[in-house]
Amino acid sequence: MQKTSAYLKSLGITRPTVVVDETRARANIRAMAAKARRCGVAFRPHFKTHQSVRIGRWFADEGVDRITVSSVPMAERFAEAGWRDVTVALLLNPLELPRIANLAAYLDRHGGRLGLTVDSVTAARATAGLDVDVWVKVDTGYGRTGVPWDAPDRLAEVVATIAQATGLLTHTGHSYLVRDGGGLAALFVETVARLTAARAAAGDPGLKLSVGDTPCCSVVDDFTGVDEIRPGNFVFYDLMQLEIGSCRAEQLAAAAVCPVVGLYPERRQIVVHGGAVHLSQESLVLADGRRIYGRLGTLDCDRDDQPAGLGRILAEAPVISLSQEHGVVAATDEIIGQLEIGDLVVVWPVHSCLTCDLIREPVILTDGR
Amino acid sequence: MQKTSAYLKSLGITRPTVVVDETRARANIRAMAAKARRCGVAFRPHFKTHQSVRIGRWFADEGVDRITVSSVPMAERFAEAGWRDVTVALLLNPLELPRIANLAAYLDRHGGRLGLTVDSVTAARATAGLDVDVWVKVDTGYGRTGVPWDAPDRLAEVVATIAQATGLLTHTGHSYLVRDGGGLAALFVETVARLTAARAAAGDPGLKLSVGDTPCCSVVDDFTGVDEIRPGNFVFYDLMQLEIGSCRAEQLAAAAVCPVVGLYPERRQIVVHGGAVHLSQESLVLADGRRIYGRLGTLDCDRDDQPAGLGRILAEAPVISLSQEHGVVAATDEIIGQLEIGDLVVVWPVHSCLTCDLIREPVILTDGR
Repeated sequence: MQKTSAYLKSLGITRPTVVVDETRARANIRAMAAKARRCGVAFRPHFKTHQSVRIGRWFADEGVDRITVSSVPMAERFAEAGWRDVTVALLLNPLELPRIANLAAYLDRHGGRLGLTVDSVTAARATAGLDVDVWVKVDTGYGRTGVPWDAPDRLAEVVATIAQATGLLTHTGHSYLVRDGGGLAALFVETVARLTAARAAAGDPGLKLSVGDTPCCSVVDDFTGVDEIRPGNFVFYDLMQLEIGSCRAEQLAAAAVCPVVGLYPERRQIVVHGGAVHLSQESLVLADGRRIYGRLGTLDCDRDDQPAGLGRILAEAPVISLSQEHGVVAATDEIIGQLEIGDLVVVWPVHSCLTCDLIREPVILTDGR
Repeated sequence: MQKTSAYLKSLGITRPTVVVDETRARANIRAMAAKARRCGVAFRPHFKTHQSVRIGRWFADEGVDRITVSSVPMAERFAEAGWRDVTVALLLNPLELPRIANLAAYLDRHGGRLGLTVDSVTAARATAGLDVDVWVKVDTGYGRTGVPWDAPDRLAEVVATIAQATGLLTHTGHSYLVRDGGGLAALFVETVARLTAARAAAGDPGLKLSVGDTPCCSVVDDFTGVDEIRPGNFVFYDLMQLEIGSCRAEQLAAAAVCPVVGLYPERRQIVVHGGAVHLSQESLVLADGRRIYGRLGTLDCDRDDQPAGLGRILAEAPVISLSQEHGVVAATDEIIGQLEIGDLVVVWPVHSCLTCDLIREPVILTDGR
């Protein structure tokens, strides 16, 4: 713990910060890009996870030339950074139409293309006159947004309202409830079958099919039946994905770094500056019923015994409660005995997308530099 | 709903935004300031709830000249805005000492004073050489940070390490578990008794006693025994405080405004652009076991039937799930029937501090303007 803390201090970290392991993140990107190529599907990763222009370039290095974002401002940011083929996966908000029209025109001038997402006749109508791709969101079982896959009349109506619909797009968010690879594979097959049925109902065999959730995209090796995948979280993964079974611990590529502000050996706890406004309150319920909000971790050392990147999970040190700025960590005597007030600790987040959204501007660990 | 939406659109709102009702917030500030004066205690409100320089002036208008903040950057921000007597309630992080020393010198040059908080000998030692107030954090039962109130030796040791300790400070965060006024009053009495015992153990009768949690400070009318109160959330209150019983619905002074992006009458739900990164995942568990993350609300109209400020809670329309950018609201046929894609709705947050921290830059509703 002392070596980890000393190294993190040497990077100039003094407050809650996100650190990203470049080697791990690039490996995650490379593996997903290779799988998409092998399967012959388009790879349009969701950039809401990292939201970083610099990390975006790691995707470009793997041949990625199209992206997904969750909001119009995020689309604007990546368009400014040079991305030319951008789909906004959040349903069209008609109040943003002037901004959307400007962005579509900007991308068009630069030989690019904006994609929008709708699930209603109202929103479909609002796309009239815009030179954009329009995806129809389909609900294949998650129950959040989208036209239900088994509502053929509504699907046909929304598709017919659009001058030329690009395709059908779904987010299989209920994959986060699955806890085994077999279950995820079965869910993927079900999703493709439902999207295919929806396309038939819509009466346009030219509609592309786009899917995108990290659990299924990580576990499935054959994307037959779809045209595009849009996973996002896989660039960093997190404790939630580990729990689902969609990654291995050595693929975790982003963590928070937090200062230790309190040590309480009498109740085997430490308190870090790192709370709900840093980690988010995303939680996991363990098999024993305990709810946790993160776990302490380590840095790995290179052959010169110098910290070189993110390391292991300390399963014996979970974050057991959060308030606005504080995180309470249950820890062993051994861990507590190694720590002092003012040390920096690694905290693996439950949901890396939210932690990165809250803290921003990650520190990149590149071969220990 | 249509009048509320049209009015909010007329303010230029297109995305998730916080709106603050100035009349209600000023009334909340005035009431707490008056109670502190009446009881003869210092009033040092916690500014982490609003984090707004403009709203800070409403406190100054009620005679407030000292404040609490939760972090060093927040202290810097309010010092720049002219606040001269600032206590940082988060435990001292030794890594921030250079920044703290600069801030202390800045405040000193302007005739002001910085207050710091410690609960260990390590942190107490780090304050040596700084010309600041040093408060010793005491744990009176919450179990997060602080020297346990019944650990006399540790208390005496920490106090003795400080050149001249200012006082003992506690946050009775376990008041958030209480659900009735009698329970809060009893908790306040217990807190004062424990702080008083801690002061006796520390062996310095000159130590001031500082308490600060909105539930107790809202319900208790007699602050005898303490020198200072530091509530923060009371400026806006929220659904959590209403559940605790520390405010009335007409005191709620901050809400999120979110665009409706999906309507699903078949499952009696609407989806708003407003998710975990806007509202936070703070939740309430209702008597029937359901977990909620907010509730829809209305604006109130003035005698000309024009929206004039925040209004009622629509108990029949709770936010039942959140993802990163989406909120799913269960609603009645009547509410859904009044809404269209692109309308704006009021969402009362469970925890206003977190919502304001996440969205920032509130829109102020001032007599309907």
